[in-house]
Order: sequence, then structure tokens, then C-alpha cells
Amino acid sequence: MSFMREQREAVERKLPEHINRLNAPIELKQSMLYSLNAGGKRIRPALLNATLHSFGKPVEIGLDVACAIEMIHTYSLIHDDLPSMDDDDLRRGKPTNHKVYGEAIAILAGDALLTYSFEIISKLSEPTLTAEQKLQLISEIAKAAGPEGMVGGQVADIAGEKRTLTLDELMYVHDHKTGDLLTCSIISGAILAGASEKDVIYLRKFSKELGLLFQIKDDILDVEGDAETIGKPVGSDTDNNKSTYPNLLGLDGAKRKLTEHITKAKEYLYHVEMNHDLLLALTDYVANRDH
Amino acid sequence: MSFMREQREAVERKLPEHINRLNAPIELKQSMLYSLNAGGKRIRPALLNATLHSFGKPVEIGLDVACAIEMIHTYSLIHDDLPSMDDDDLRRGKPTNHKVYGEAIAILAGDALLTYSFEIISKLSEPTLTAEQKLQLISEIAKAAGPEGMVGGQVADIAGEKRTLTLDELMYVHDHKTGDLLTCSIISGAILAGASEKDVIYLRKFSKELGLLFQIKDDILDVEGDAETIGKPVGSDTDNNKSTYPNLLGLDGAKRKLTEHITKAKEYLYHVEMNHDLLLALTDYVANRDH
Repeated sequence: MSFMREQREAVERKLPEHINRLNAPIELKQSMLYSLNAGGKRIRPALLNATLHSFGKPVEIGLDVACAIEMIHTYSLIHDDLPSMDDDDLRRGKPTNHKVYGEAIAILAGDALLTYSFEIISKLSEPTLTAEQKLQLISEIAKAAGPEGMVGGQVADIAGEKRTLTLDELMYVHDHKTGDLLTCSIISGAILAGASEKDVIYLRKFSKELGLLFQIKDDILDVEGDAETIGKPVGSDTDNNKSTYPNLLGLDGAKRKLTEHITKAKEYLYHVEMNHDLLLALTDYVANRDH
Repeated sequence: MSFMREQREAVERKLPEHINRLNAPIELKQSMLYSLNAGGKRIRPALLNATLHSFGKPVEIGLDVACAIEMIHTYSLIHDDLPSMDDDDLRRGKPTNHKVYGEAIAILAGDALLTYSFEIISKLSEPTLTAEQKLQLISEIAKAAGPEGMVGGQVADIAGEKRTLTLDELMYVHDHKTGDLLTCSIISGAILAGASEKDVIYLRKFSKELGLLFQIKDDILDVEGDAETIGKPVGSDTDNNKSTYPNLLGLDGAKRKLTEHITKAKEYLYHVEMNHDLLLALTDYVANRDH
């Protein structure tokens, strides 16, 4: 998808600029850059900018917020990979941050990325944005990333490593661990575009479905994907006896669930007053990706 | 000092309210509360509220920002105590967070406190505050806590455990690791009070001196304090061959340095158009405390 590629390239050009201008210890900057530059789909920036674009706004006004959200996503990966969490040595085929810089610096690089993301948003220089819009962005993003959002989901996920979760518990984990930051990317685009309250409500419903189908697809790829393409060993979740959709519903059940969420996502999207083409295409991209 | 006690009690009543209202996993909330409730001097809230009070404003308008800054301070202690950092089993005479909740939850409780602090500020309901003031607060606090501030100082401090730092390097560590969050407490009070730019400039200079004398006093207490009163073994820094003021300058040299910074701090303070009594008293309190 050329929109995805363009947005990925724009955010990958901008992220190092934000780090390079910092007056901070060189090792810290290197560790932050290492994980920011480690690639990935950049799906959150793409969702933010796709939303802006679908409301007929220039994507440039969203670039710094997209970078801030990508920094928060990156910090969460660094902390998730730590020995006391998932204890992963590889991420996207490269050594994880703590394998290269040590645990202490990895923890601090994560802390720095999280904190800096809020500074970036508080200092947005885009002249069309009001102070109220910037505060709304911070409030939305902090809630999505914090104890009621991503961090809460991660805590519930850790509990799930000790016992098999119910389907409801599993949905709670994904809603928050993955879903909330995806949702806040889309809602941030809506805030930047000055969308109506009604549109924000339906975009939230759309995003929630998108987040769930994103996770179900991840679980399915872990069962039947190609190790080289997805960048981690296939079947690693099954081996760990982890709570996943295929483990709970069977592979066919998980695929039916995926189709259900695709249908619902698109239904909600049609209620939003915008050009729907791009977000429909992104939904299909997320549902059909091979990594 | 009765002002210190009153402010400490107000912030200790308010902190649990912020956590209890969260819709988040119970273990996460318990871990966040455990460290927030572990006591401490609450010096940052006191500095913020003292500044507000000295500008003739009611301290109540600063309470939530004071709580947010105390959450950031608390998150930094949780992460500092981790096995990969200082590896401390005790903090203020009680088991450290990771000793009670495990490393994973401790890291996440820190992440949650940091993220939530920005949400709290973005949602301040105080009617006299403008959106611009709230953004200024977020910008000030994020910079002080992030890679150019506290986290940067902590990274430099870790480097100092491998070799003896020069006096300049040691000042860099303390300027950022401890000083920046103290400064931002005072500047946050000034922002909330609507202080002039000139007053903010001199308060920054005052704060920098205060931060340094705070740290020098800490180092001196580690040499000659009472273990029970300060809540950790006396001499633990000397044993570790850590870079401290007494190790670099000798105990008498460190005490002379302390007196120099007290004098400078007070000189800067007199340039600020406010009632100086309370911040002068707080400076003496910090310089003369026994823990």
C-alpha cells in the first residue's frame, strides 16, 4: 500500500531528528535511536495520518504527534522485551535493546521515550492547532498508554502467563495492551482534524474492532505464518501455552472471529463523515498482512 | 516546619484518591499505592506549594500538580531500586517495590505513575488556569523528567559507578538526576501563580543552587548521619567507592561547598518579587535536615 509506505518513510525520516537534537548522554540517545530505527510496520503513525487525510486535512500537521505515539509504542516494546517480562533476545530479527545496551540503559531509554513524547506534543508549533487541542491529545494519549490502557493490559497479560485466560480476559488484555494505542492514534488524527463528537464516537468503535482484528491476525500468523517474514519463531505462543485466540477457539474459530470483526469495523466506519476509502483499505491491509 | 507538615499531609491525603479512582488491574494499583504511600519528605510538593504561597496564591490550586510531580519522583525511585540499577532491597526502611511485587510489576507501576502524571495535568479542572498554563506545566515537567533531565542524570550516574567522576561530571549528575525535578516543582508553582518571566529566571537560578545543596547535604548525611534517622546504612556510598562530594572534596570541603550554595541560593531569591520568608526557611530546612 503506497500510503503506508509514504507515511512510514516520513516518520522514519523525522524520528531521528527528534532524538539528535536532544542535549543528553550519548549512550542514552544511541539506545533510544537503536529501537526507534529497528523498523516495524509504523501502523500507528499510518492510522493517525490516514484519519487526518480522510477528513481532508494535510498529513503534515500530524507528523510530530505520529512520532510521539511511535515513541510510546517503542518504549513499550523495549520494556516488554526485558528479562523480567517476556525475556526476548530478538525483536524484528535484531538483538533487543537490553541485549545491546544492558538492562539499566534499556529501562531508562524506555522511560526517556515515554517522557519525551509528551514534551513533543506540549510544544507542537503547528499554528492551526489550539492549546485545547494539544491538551486533548495529551489527555487521550496518556490515558491510552497508562494504567487504564496499555500498562494495565500488560499487567493483565503477565497474569495470563501463569494461567489460561478466559476469552473475556483475553479480550481485556488485547483491548488495552494493543488496542488502546491503536485507537488513540486514530482519535489523535480526529482531534487534529477537528472532527465532530459523533464522528469521534464512531471512530472509537471502529478502532476497537480494528485493534481486536489486529491481535487475532497476529495470533493466527504465529500459528501459520512464515518465520522469516514475521521475524520471530512460528509457534512460539503455542509452545508457551499462552492464551491466544487459536488456542482458545481453534484456528478456524479464530479465523471466523477475524471475519466478524472486519465486518463490524467497516459498519462503524460508514457512520463517520469522511472519505472512507483509505481506512477501509487499511482495515483489509491489517487483516490480510503476512507479517 | 509546620508548612512542610501541612503540605505533606495534604498531598498524602490526595495521592491515594488519584489511584483509587483508576479502572485498572488491582495488583497494578496496589503496587503504585505501595510506593506512593511509603512516606518520604514530600519536598517537591512542598516547594511547589511554597512558591505559590509566596506569590500570594492559595496552595489548593497546586495540589494536583504537586501530586503529579510526586508520582514522577516515586516512579524514578521504583526504577532506580531495580536489580539492574542500584539493586536496593530497602527504601525508607521498607522492602522496595520489586521485592514485594516482582520486577515486572515494579517496572510497570513506574511506567504507569509516569504516564498518569501527564494525564492528571492535562485534565486539571481548576477554573482559573488557562490551557496555555497547563501546556507550559507539561512542557516544563516533561523536560525536567526526560532525557535532558532526570533520566539523563541517571544515565550519567550509572557511568559513575564504573569510574570516579570529576567534580564537573558529578555536578552534571546531580543537576539533572535530582536538581531538575526540584527546579520544575518551583517553576510549576511560578507557572500556576502566573509569575513574570524575570521572576521565573531568578527562581530557576535559586532552584539550581537549592538542588545542589540538597545533594551535598545528602552525601554529608551518608557520612555522618544516623542510620535509623536516614533510613539506610550510613557509609553505604563510601563503601561503594561512589562519586560523592565528601569523597571528592573531603568532609570539610563538602561542608564549605554547602555553605557557598546556601549563600548563592538566598542571593538569587531576593531578586524575585514575592514574600521570601517561606523559601528562605525551606532552604535552611533542606541544608540543616538530619535525614
